[in-house]
Amino acid sequence: MSSPVHADRLARLRAALAARGLDGFVIPISDEHMSEYVGDYAQRMAWLTGFGGSAGTAAVLPERAAVFVDGRYTVQVRDQVDGALFDYVGVPQSSVAEWLGAHVSAGQKVGYDPWLHGIDWARALEQALAAKGAQLVAVDSNPVDAAWEDQPAPSDAVVTVHDTSLAGQSAVEKRAIIADWLKAKGLDTTVMTALDSVAWAFNIRGSDVTHTPVGLAFALLHADATADLFIAPGKITDAVRTHLGNSVRVHDRAAFEPALAALAGKKVAVDPDRAVAAIFTALDQAGAGIARHRDPAVLPKAIKNAVELDGTRAAHVRDGVAVARFLKWMEDVAPQGGLDELGAAAKLKAFREESGALVDLSFDTISAAGPNGALPHYKVDETTNRAIETGTLYLVDSGGQYADGTTDITRTIAIGRPTAEMRRRFTQVLKGHIALAMARFPTGTRGSQLDILARQYLWADGVDYAHGTGHGVGAYLAVHEGPQRIAKPAGGQAGTEEPLHAGMILSNEPGYYKAGHFGIRIENLVIVVPQCIDGAEEEMLGFETITFAPIARDLIDGALLSAVEADWIDAYHADVLAKLAPAMDAATGEWLAAACAPVERGSAALAA
Amino acid sequence: MSSPVHADRLARLRAALAARGLDGFVIPISDEHMSEYVGDYAQRMAWLTGFGGSAGTAAVLPERAAVFVDGRYTVQVRDQVDGALFDYVGVPQSSVAEWLGAHVSAGQKVGYDPWLHGIDWARALEQALAAKGAQLVAVDSNPVDAAWEDQPAPSDAVVTVHDTSLAGQSAVEKRAIIADWLKAKGLDTTVMTALDSVAWAFNIRGSDVTHTPVGLAFALLHADATADLFIAPGKITDAVRTHLGNSVRVHDRAAFEPALAALAGKKVAVDPDRAVAAIFTALDQAGAGIARHRDPAVLPKAIKNAVELDGTRAAHVRDGVAVARFLKWMEDVAPQGGLDELGAAAKLKAFREESGALVDLSFDTISAAGPNGALPHYKVDETTNRAIETGTLYLVDSGGQYADGTTDITRTIAIGRPTAEMRRRFTQVLKGHIALAMARFPTGTRGSQLDILARQYLWADGVDYAHGTGHGVGAYLAVHEGPQRIAKPAGGQAGTEEPLHAGMILSNEPGYYKAGHFGIRIENLVIVVPQCIDGAEEEMLGFETITFAPIARDLIDGALLSAVEADWIDAYHADVLAKLAPAMDAATGEWLAAACAPVERGSAALAA
Repeated sequence: MSSPVHADRLARLRAALAARGLDGFVIPISDEHMSEYVGDYAQRMAWLTGFGGSAGTAAVLPERAAVFVDGRYTVQVRDQVDGALFDYVGVPQSSVAEWLGAHVSAGQKVGYDPWLHGIDWARALEQALAAKGAQLVAVDSNPVDAAWEDQPAPSDAVVTVHDTSLAGQSAVEKRAIIADWLKAKGLDTTVMTALDSVAWAFNIRGSDVTHTPVGLAFALLHADATADLFIAPGKITDAVRTHLGNSVRVHDRAAFEPALAALAGKKVAVDPDRAVAAIFTALDQAGAGIARHRDPAVLPKAIKNAVELDGTRAAHVRDGVAVARFLKWMEDVAPQGGLDELGAAAKLKAFREESGALVDLSFDTISAAGPNGALPHYKVDETTNRAIETGTLYLVDSGGQYADGTTDITRTIAIGRPTAEMRRRFTQVLKGHIALAMARFPTGTRGSQLDILARQYLWADGVDYAHGTGHGVGAYLAVHEGPQRIAKPAGGQAGTEEPLHAGMILSNEPGYYKAGHFGIRIENLVIVVPQCIDGAEEEMLGFETITFAPIARDLIDGALLSAVEADWIDAYHADVLAKLAPAMDAATGEWLAAACAPVERGSAALAA
Repeated sequence: MSSPVHADRLARLRAALAARGLDGFVIPISDEHMSEYVGDYAQRMAWLTGFGGSAGTAAVLPERAAVFVDGRYTVQVRDQVDGALFDYVGVPQSSVAEWLGAHVSAGQKVGYDPWLHGIDWARALEQALAAKGAQLVAVDSNPVDAAWEDQPAPSDAVVTVHDTSLAGQSAVEKRAIIADWLKAKGLDTTVMTALDSVAWAFNIRGSDVTHTPVGLAFALLHADATADLFIAPGKITDAVRTHLGNSVRVHDRAAFEPALAALAGKKVAVDPDRAVAAIFTALDQAGAGIARHRDPAVLPKAIKNAVELDGTRAAHVRDGVAVARFLKWMEDVAPQGGLDELGAAAKLKAFREESGALVDLSFDTISAAGPNGALPHYKVDETTNRAIETGTLYLVDSGGQYADGTTDITRTIAIGRPTAEMRRRFTQVLKGHIALAMARFPTGTRGSQLDILARQYLWADGVDYAHGTGHGVGAYLAVHEGPQRIAKPAGGQAGTEEPLHAGMILSNEPGYYKAGHFGIRIENLVIVVPQCIDGAEEEMLGFETITFAPIARDLIDGALLSAVEADWIDAYHADVLAKLAPAMDAATGEWLAAACAPVERGSAALAA
């Protein structure tokens, strides 16, 4: 595709660069908080290139430019970005540093915005350019913003108090934990930049980022348990100010950089995976002592307390009612024809809204018909919208943000009669899902050790899925949360070294994708819970499944299930019925009872 | 225990240290090749302290001394080492550096033998001592040797040719692979210090180290595919010299250090996990460029060729005949009483020797009755020797070195009638063994990803075993060989990041140990083999089990087995019978047929 709009924008960016004495510039999808999802004001790459994905980078030189995307976006980038303006470069096979190294000339200056990149990334690129006689230059203000005439302003939405009745622990107690950590490490202050960490540490929520209930803010937390919060003044209501209390000094967000300069002589914890390069530079120039540590809020935030867990359980029952109503509606409507992916997603959202408690979706619904289901990260829009047709599978991955919890569920259903291949693969995915759901493991076990449980039955057939098995989930926070993760130990979406701790929430979502044909994924959320086992010699953990919605029985081949597996699915469906039926009208309740009936059992001969 | 002998030796060592101006010294169990097992001449820690284990360190200061051992030896070290002379220190909870740091005085000099330690260990200790104002000093000759009057000389056994008919690849071809690797890396030479690497790269074998058929030698391999071999002249026969050929220059072992000095200006690959500190120092002082790389022989040695695999298969059938004859003999003799661990081990060795092909055992036989079986690394001697009694389990872990292959097998049998607990645990161990044996996995999978398959049924009951699940095994080489390993990803005996490759040999040896009562382990060796699966979308690997001996049917609770598991054990026993029966006399053949009869099948309800 040829895009005069983007040719013009690229020309204007190059003019802005030339005016600043720069030859090149790097444009990531990132914000000052290194967020996974960013606000509209920070969608600079999309503005420049037209790319609509959620991960990627662009780089511009005087005669060439390029877009860098991973395998998920290989097709999409060619649809959306003008190849006459930008080279398409695949990562991680290549990289920004490699491409710039190949095309930069000695003496050229390449700019980057130090508020949008990590320090280690900047240092590596600096060396790569230096090897070519070129120079990496941190800009004071972003030249894209100068060229982008109608750039949206950052969101001015107010933040709200996340009450202790939902948070389970006061913000003062949380910050005392951080203060103790600082004292134990002999440090004075930690720089908190991750938006969900700030939301957690101050028990506030916001709506500045799509689907994640956080407000744009930085914070400094000190060993004396006081804190400085840097946030646009218009975002703070009297109620929030009262809630924050005397131990929190509130400043304008613009005062954050000067505050870093005032940390001269202090020992300051900074997380290089979450704090941008500009923060390191400011602390360095101030003469602060930088100690690289993971943000100390990450682990306590991931280990939910009893109140958060109870809230999350309640949110899941509420969410399950909406999903079950949707599944019945799909069973009624889809076979008649005329339904498409956008229509289905809208209806599911409507069912969630009818609960009266939905704050937002927790991510863009993946509503994928037939071959679109084989794209694990598919996002439906007007151009890709596909009719839901008989003889295909329909995959829907969606979730809600509720004040008491965050949900994320995937169900796959057959429209009409599924093929034997669809049923075999669905059953293998289900067997993996069950094996993980039933796993018991000693404390200290990493998610990467459990990953094979979910893959083993697919592997036995020589097939696999190219994504992780489980990601962490927040409590009315980010639907993707670290450090917990269940995945292979290496590769593109590798697991982490963090052991699983009781109170963590994770997804359990094996899948199978037959390119050009269909996709299958079965996703429930689980809580890591202690296990009481008679005669146990170790402290053991396991999972409590907290997502409740029927799993398509017509896609299950009972002959492939062991008795234990059939018992699990029947018990799960009995739970689904017990939890959801009270909120159902008569017709939906009747449908639900049928959807939760025991599965047909066949020979267990093939079930290992 | 009080030990005047060791008090005297310690005093003499301190005198030898004082004569050299040293205040302290570190005494590891190690040799110039950082071998796992060392020759008698290198058993300096045993001489000094009386400790008989295979892993540990001693450290001596003027007023204090200590022995450092891991959890395997907590009990043994207290039995064997005089606590009045040596503090007992557990590792990895503490360390030599921590203990020396706590007890050394400013200005003191602590010596170490740079031919017995790695460079990174030495640098870390140097820093720890410097922090206390003390100094780490590399000695020119080992002061223990000066105090040890009757120290054995290193073995003077000759080395022999390992024929291409057994090795499957000529030494010239192997060294061409190393030369290609050096050229690809832009390097001139690699320093080869691991004894099994030298044995592999030159197709020679020796008998200088107990149970591992290697000769004491160093080598330098060059990018031009020539090599220098450093070995005591008396070890080289005319046949070996002819075999080595013109591309190998043979030198006295004493010429190795000067040869390093002659590498001035060369780029030299050195493996910091296998080459001692003295080698790094010599290269550094010579002005050679040191490139840290894993010994390039490690991976090709671990990936066996078809000839090595066929030889190993043949060795396992031969070894299985001996083990099966032993198991029948145990069944006949043990219930009568009067048999002990040493007697059983001797009989098993005799059966192996009757094959006429046994070169050596591949490690000291673990012959463990009753509660001794609960010590996974138990080594029987006159003081621990225990009667084999009715109502107990007997565990025997043993192996042989044959010219065509190395074996390692563990069987656990019940003497008399086993308890329900013994049968439940044995069956859980067996289920894990079977799950691993049947696993299929994509290329690129690490052993640590598979480890849970062997533990899952024990974990379901809240129990575990505190050792790895599988180690690599050499082809008529070391019974413990890297880099392949199946284990948890972290902890004391952690797995490696190396993926499993077709042609690697590993053990499959889950177990269960009830302290003070009994131990269970079921160990077969397996080969990693490609899997042909109809409709597979990935290149898949799996395991071929190559160890053949009956698994105790009276310890299997059929009610806990799934149909697939029962099928596996029946098929395995059918293979055992087919492979071993031809070499059996009539009575043993009849016993074998009964031992290999189908298992009783019960309800599969408990088998997941």
